[in-house]
Amino acid sequence: MGKLLVVGSVALDTVKTPFGEVTEVLGGSATYFSTAASYFTSVDLIAVVGEDFPEQHVAFLKSRKIDLAGLERRPGATFRWKGAYSHQLNEAQTLDTRLNVFETFRPKIPAQYSSPDVLFLGNIDPNLQLDVLQQVKRPALVACDTMNFWINGKRDALWNVLQHIDILIINDGEARALGEDTNLVKVAKKILARGPKHLIVKRGEYGVLMFNDKQVFGAPAFPLDDVRDPTGAGDTFAGGFLGYLAATGNRSPEAMRQAIIFGSVMASFTVEAFSLDRLRILDYKEIETRFKEFKRLTHFEDIEA
Amino acid sequence: MGKLLVVGSVALDTVKTPFGEVTEVLGGSATYFSTAASYFTSVDLIAVVGEDFPEQHVAFLKSRKIDLAGLERRPGATFRWKGAYSHQLNEAQTLDTRLNVFETFRPKIPAQYSSPDVLFLGNIDPNLQLDVLQQVKRPALVACDTMNFWINGKRDALWNVLQHIDILIINDGEARALGEDTNLVKVAKKILARGPKHLIVKRGEYGVLMFNDKQVFGAPAFPLDDVRDPTGAGDTFAGGFLGYLAATGNRSPEAMRQAIIFGSVMASFTVEAFSLDRLRILDYKEIETRFKEFKRLTHFEDIEA
Repeated sequence: MGKLLVVGSVALDTVKTPFGEVTEVLGGSATYFSTAASYFTSVDLIAVVGEDFPEQHVAFLKSRKIDLAGLERRPGATFRWKGAYSHQLNEAQTLDTRLNVFETFRPKIPAQYSSPDVLFLGNIDPNLQLDVLQQVKRPALVACDTMNFWINGKRDALWNVLQHIDILIINDGEARALGEDTNLVKVAKKILARGPKHLIVKRGEYGVLMFNDKQVFGAPAFPLDDVRDPTGAGDTFAGGFLGYLAATGNRSPEAMRQAIIFGSVMASFTVEAFSLDRLRILDYKEIETRFKEFKRLTHFEDIEA
Repeated sequence: MGKLLVVGSVALDTVKTPFGEVTEVLGGSATYFSTAASYFTSVDLIAVVGEDFPEQHVAFLKSRKIDLAGLERRPGATFRWKGAYSHQLNEAQTLDTRLNVFETFRPKIPAQYSSPDVLFLGNIDPNLQLDVLQQVKRPALVACDTMNFWINGKRDALWNVLQHIDILIINDGEARALGEDTNLVKVAKKILARGPKHLIVKRGEYGVLMFNDKQVFGAPAFPLDDVRDPTGAGDTFAGGFLGYLAATGNRSPEAMRQAIIFGSVMASFTVEAFSLDRLRILDYKEIETRFKEFKRLTHFEDIEA
């Protein structure tokens, strides 16, 4: 079982959807990522929280066997995000962002984390992503996320990061902004030419596409009759995807495809409740069951020809 | 090989996309449908055109072995549609609609068409769809399309139609309007409770979902690096889907899933060029090749558990 290192945010979220609202609940990209990944492999977390970060959240992450030696606690307040979703649940409207201690976050990799098998660079300043890369022995697999803020504001630094990673995991709007084209196949060609061996495009309720220079893999999202809060779905996807790959150590195209499905399965659970509430009560048997349901959802017989 | 009867529109389209524009080219729901279906089975077409309908288009439809005994030619002008697409190519903006002879279209089913194996009621007034149903011996399979104009304006008549059909094929916006919910799983339950055994939701570049009371099947759209004009994709999908089902006579869940893929394959060709230009030069071997590419696109190994 491989060691998975993640760098990203731990936050307190205030979220309103048509199905309810929650105030200052556990959130953050690294939180969703590491919790999802923890079902598959051991996870080391690098993030920062403030003095006000509730002990119960630390206890929850520990209960998932996530190693918190890299969870820095600094004077000041924890990162807060406030957002709302309309009925379509497609895109969050950010109402307020208070970076607080996250604003001056400089990830420091503890010595015992410096040889991960798999590294996930969550959505932070690309210069910090580069800095993390320089602090570790090159892992067998490096993946990263980003967002429009960096695509528009630090494009050169971001392209520099992309030269050093294996997998870029972003949503479709970000992919189109980075590739400067509306056609995703063209976008994928452009991005793959600049470094990453794989591009994974997250499309929310429409599923996911994975491109490399040889093939494309596409999967729909799992149709659910009760979606409460899409917050964290993308980070959960990435956690399930890389958690599975770290666990198997297998990098075959077939393992990559199964990893995409495990990521999609994890995301499908996250959106069923606010915050990480569905993951809190999830067991591995449910993950396997939903994987098999995914197979039934997408399977068809090939033709003979 | 089963007989497939389609009732719908034949039109002259003027279309502008970021990749070009065309003026008064062959279009219409029944045109795309029947051309796509003609690759799988024999098709009888019920539609109306005006005196100005170019003979070359009649010749093209005949070249596809589509039976045109039901193609009425009436005094006046052929139905014209003018539309434009922005870069995302997701939704057409209608610039002008001139129903012309289509406005007073009253489908009359010739005696030799009155026992089809499969019937497709294209997007026309639900009262006319009912009228067509009354003119034929109940086919083994009846599918229908509709649009927001009828969902909003003739909802009761439409629900009446839906009691008499097997498969409703609509896009996701229409499904949400008809089911009065944003969640497609809930929408499907509502619609299936009112008559149809299957609901097929077309999602453009995101693919398709098929619901019945036992299962859901989902497939992404085929990723293409050169999409020129999405006009007719949905009707082409329906034509490939029902053409394949008419041809096999097999109604098993497995055949339905393969039919969804054949429909998706046909739609993926249509969008590669304006009007029906890609279908004009398409041969069946290309269809089989792309079906197999679809299998590679979506395949993953199940887990053992």
